[in-house]
Amino acid sequence: MSTEKCFAKGSAVPGPVPNGHIRLYSMRFCPFAQRARLVLSAKGIKHDIININLKDKPEWFLEKNPLGLVPTVETLAGELIYESPIVCDYLDEFYPEKKLLPSSAFGKAQQKMTLEHFSKITPLFHKIASMRKSGEDISGQEAELKNKFSKLNEELASKKFFGGDSVTMIDYMMWPWFERLESFELKQCLDGTPELKKWTKRMLEDKAVKATMHSADSHTAFKKTYAEGNPNFDYGL
Amino acid sequence: MSTEKCFAKGSAVPGPVPNGHIRLYSMRFCPFAQRARLVLSAKGIKHDIININLKDKPEWFLEKNPLGLVPTVETLAGELIYESPIVCDYLDEFYPEKKLLPSSAFGKAQQKMTLEHFSKITPLFHKIASMRKSGEDISGQEAELKNKFSKLNEELASKKFFGGDSVTMIDYMMWPWFERLESFELKQCLDGTPELKKWTKRMLEDKAVKATMHSADSHTAFKKTYAEGNPNFDYGL
Repeated sequence: MSTEKCFAKGSAVPGPVPNGHIRLYSMRFCPFAQRARLVLSAKGIKHDIININLKDKPEWFLEKNPLGLVPTVETLAGELIYESPIVCDYLDEFYPEKKLLPSSAFGKAQQKMTLEHFSKITPLFHKIASMRKSGEDISGQEAELKNKFSKLNEELASKKFFGGDSVTMIDYMMWPWFERLESFELKQCLDGTPELKKWTKRMLEDKAVKATMHSADSHTAFKKTYAEGNPNFDYGL
Repeated sequence: MSTEKCFAKGSAVPGPVPNGHIRLYSMRFCPFAQRARLVLSAKGIKHDIININLKDKPEWFLEKNPLGLVPTVETLAGELIYESPIVCDYLDEFYPEKKLLPSSAFGKAQQKMTLEHFSKITPLFHKIASMRKSGEDISGQEAELKNKFSKLNEELASKKFFGGDSVTMIDYMMWPWFERLESFELKQCLDGTPELKKWTKRMLEDKAVKATMHSADSHTAFKKTYAEGNPNFDYGL
């Protein structure tokens, strides 16, 4: 995990990507960037990480990626890749050791369809947080989240992980939001989905998860600074 | 192109997928389903097409795909794949002849990033149509569309097609919306983007485009029945 403080507007351009490495532009608490950190870690890819102050982005970063998104990866040749699923697929294909995606076309399609389903879940986390903050009734959204979780629970009826008996890409694509369940005060949403709950426990034993995770307390503390409009991207450093 | 009338609620289940074929569930005027029709045609994949009445879906179709989406493909083994980019990637990987995606990991990532940009364009078409219908001022949305087109125009500065000198996957992913520009009364949005306009002319010469396309008049006529709340999925048959 990177222990480097974030780069903000006005900061000096970091040095070139080190030989034999790939560079990840990240933010320590971003769940989308964590997808890329999980893949880099699981595959043992040599990399460095440049953390970005997302509220006050460096000019040189916006020159590289005008959208200013993390995760963005930069290769030795200066190629830039962004959008977390695209970044993760790129890493899995370019670095052939320890493939995280299934080898069959249908296996890949299945993971992409699960990810598509999951992409309708992640906005709910943020919606619930903002509604809770403004004192609105969140029971409808919580019910919707539980309903979507129950579909994931069904998928786990006959297997340990979403791709089978071991951790694969789709598990890493979903994990960051489950790591943040407690900080979103949504842990109770797992109560009706025992297989999904067991999966979160199994994931906590995974090396890449251990190497990239923050504690619930750290997520909660960061989230508080974020909600107050003054995110402390360097929290805990 | 399929000339079969659509299957609606209450219809008999179609026979099994013919040997050596793959089946596409489609709707003749759906731009997302057309992506799959383009790929099937370009790669010369043996297939049959079952058209679905999207306003009154057959029970047996909802059993296969509870989301009721087209395109959905069904293999001989009963595997079901949906979401147009997932379907198209599956077809390109499973049928190795005439690959439409680049072979390099970065080439693939580039096409996915362009597609991600394009996925912010398609909702604008429908927004403009519904605003126009209700008599709202669409000048802001048209300006936004032109602005997004200008980014695509830049990409074409040094190449004939989005992937280089020949048609590849990304061209087919975008084409269906350009085929419908006239029926959306948006053809004037190409006036400031000459390279993009030239690309649409080149695409009209492509065999798969020719094999799957409807005339502007047909699109306009279908769109009219759709806007009136009574889509004629069999228009022209």
